[in-house]
Amino acid sequence: MSTTSRPSSLATWNDGAAKSLLLDFVARVTEQGGPDFVPQAERIATFDNDGTLWCEQPLFVQAFFLIDRAGELAGKDPTLKERQPFRALLEQDIKTLMGLGKQALFELVFATHSGMREEEFDPIARNWLAKARHPKFGRLFKECAYRPQLELLNFLRQNGFKTYIVTGGGIDFVRACAEETYGIPREQVIGSSQKLRFEVNAGRGGLMKLAELNSFDDREVKPQNIALHIGRRPILAFGNSDGDLAMLRYTRTGTGPRLALLLHHDDAEREVAYDREFRLSPLSEALERAAEYGVTVVSMKRDWNVIF
Amino acid sequence: MSTTSRPSSLATWNDGAAKSLLLDFVARVTEQGGPDFVPQAERIATFDNDGTLWCEQPLFVQAFFLIDRAGELAGKDPTLKERQPFRALLEQDIKTLMGLGKQALFELVFATHSGMREEEFDPIARNWLAKARHPKFGRLFKECAYRPQLELLNFLRQNGFKTYIVTGGGIDFVRACAEETYGIPREQVIGSSQKLRFEVNAGRGGLMKLAELNSFDDREVKPQNIALHIGRRPILAFGNSDGDLAMLRYTRTGTGPRLALLLHHDDAEREVAYDREFRLSPLSEALERAAEYGVTVVSMKRDWNVIF
Repeated sequence: MSTTSRPSSLATWNDGAAKSLLLDFVARVTEQGGPDFVPQAERIATFDNDGTLWCEQPLFVQAFFLIDRAGELAGKDPTLKERQPFRALLEQDIKTLMGLGKQALFELVFATHSGMREEEFDPIARNWLAKARHPKFGRLFKECAYRPQLELLNFLRQNGFKTYIVTGGGIDFVRACAEETYGIPREQVIGSSQKLRFEVNAGRGGLMKLAELNSFDDREVKPQNIALHIGRRPILAFGNSDGDLAMLRYTRTGTGPRLALLLHHDDAEREVAYDREFRLSPLSEALERAAEYGVTVVSMKRDWNVIF
Repeated sequence: MSTTSRPSSLATWNDGAAKSLLLDFVARVTEQGGPDFVPQAERIATFDNDGTLWCEQPLFVQAFFLIDRAGELAGKDPTLKERQPFRALLEQDIKTLMGLGKQALFELVFATHSGMREEEFDPIARNWLAKARHPKFGRLFKECAYRPQLELLNFLRQNGFKTYIVTGGGIDFVRACAEETYGIPREQVIGSSQKLRFEVNAGRGGLMKLAELNSFDDREVKPQNIALHIGRRPILAFGNSDGDLAMLRYTRTGTGPRLALLLHHDDAEREVAYDREFRLSPLSEALERAAEYGVTVVSMKRDWNVIF
């Protein structure tokens, strides 16, 4: 078994257990005639987005988008400034916002993103992503993707994997940047979604985004949506919170070679160090039981030689 | 504009308006620098399955699967033979079955397909498809796909299109044969679906198929599910019944070059001639208003020089 001809060697990953495991896994599943060979069509890899592929601190990228979007809407309807949860959002009262919980945040998403056709949303998100910057790192949000993960995504694709995002974030928001940021096409993004209604107006058919939840793509809903959208059990999955644990276990407990990885944000110097205390998306059970569940913990500090 | 270098010229399609339109459309959208050029990522083509890609008469293929499956279950639980709708199904009382309507048929699907993990269903469907034969044509059901459509699917893929099935049939059933029959991978099948529940038993995670409808992928739900799964508006769609009309209009009324096609079963000699009177999936409004909606009617009798 040789990896010499492989086009990438994960240069942004430090030598160590995690990198070895990744290189060995990819070598095994791509070794034609080998005992662990996996046909190309079955080489499905699923990645969480917030905190796994890009920075989720101090808030999800989409929450900053929400703040700006609510500000625009409040310009047209000033009464929004008086009403919760818009008030907390507009005042950038992050503590109150975090107290609202993940689901409430997505309800804000739906409240501010509905009443338009799906195709109208895309340019709104793209325009914002072209300009908005991270408050701490100063770089564009869409450049807050982790370089070692971009390299891993490429490495997997070069080895015949089909890479998917499976995110608790809004499917349309992530689709607006997945191709440019991660090289992942829109149809390989699975996420939280609003209900849609098909309408014909002035002879033109289109889909209206309704202020109603279709799917909150978190926890056990992740494997359920993977089955719905892909219809194959992934052979590799990567997450960073308890919200990813069901996807990691679904992946890890399939027959044949499987790899489940969990990113631990333990690098206060280069990024942010956190786990249990991030109330929007805590990392607790998945970290405590990683060994028992066969999940490999990746340390940002130890395993990555560069972050962005 | 030249099509001389194209690998296929739709040999099983007779020369005529429909074939010319298809060849011209594909030539235009693939002409780099041309006014109608469509980037490869946006070349999405969606096909209905029953009656569009394979024969749906005298009943949907999946209904015959249901009959055999219910027979197996009745071997274990004889009381099923006394209960409707199983009784009509087991007696192959097609008239009564058709009176039950499409939705009732899928309820039968869910009743007979639930209580197992999603991965257990696939071999059951594959084993049946490997042996079951069409009552009139004598050929395996999976060989009741229309040759001109297989050629069209190939032609589109050779020209950079991504081909999808968007079916009212069960997503797992169609996934069990889509790759072999149509060259369409599982993740490019969108269909009616049951709710799934993630469970861990004896340390192994999996998805239980529940006896509950998640999505009945018909009529206006087709464009809604296209937006959910693909996130792009198709540039070509092909259907054969009123259940496909929303998908055809969604496709046809997008900006830029678009093609919407409707197969009319008008060939009693080589297949079956029917439209309005097929109660499970009538073709009425779509046929009457095709010209108004910019939908091209394809005649099986006139446009195809071979069926299977």
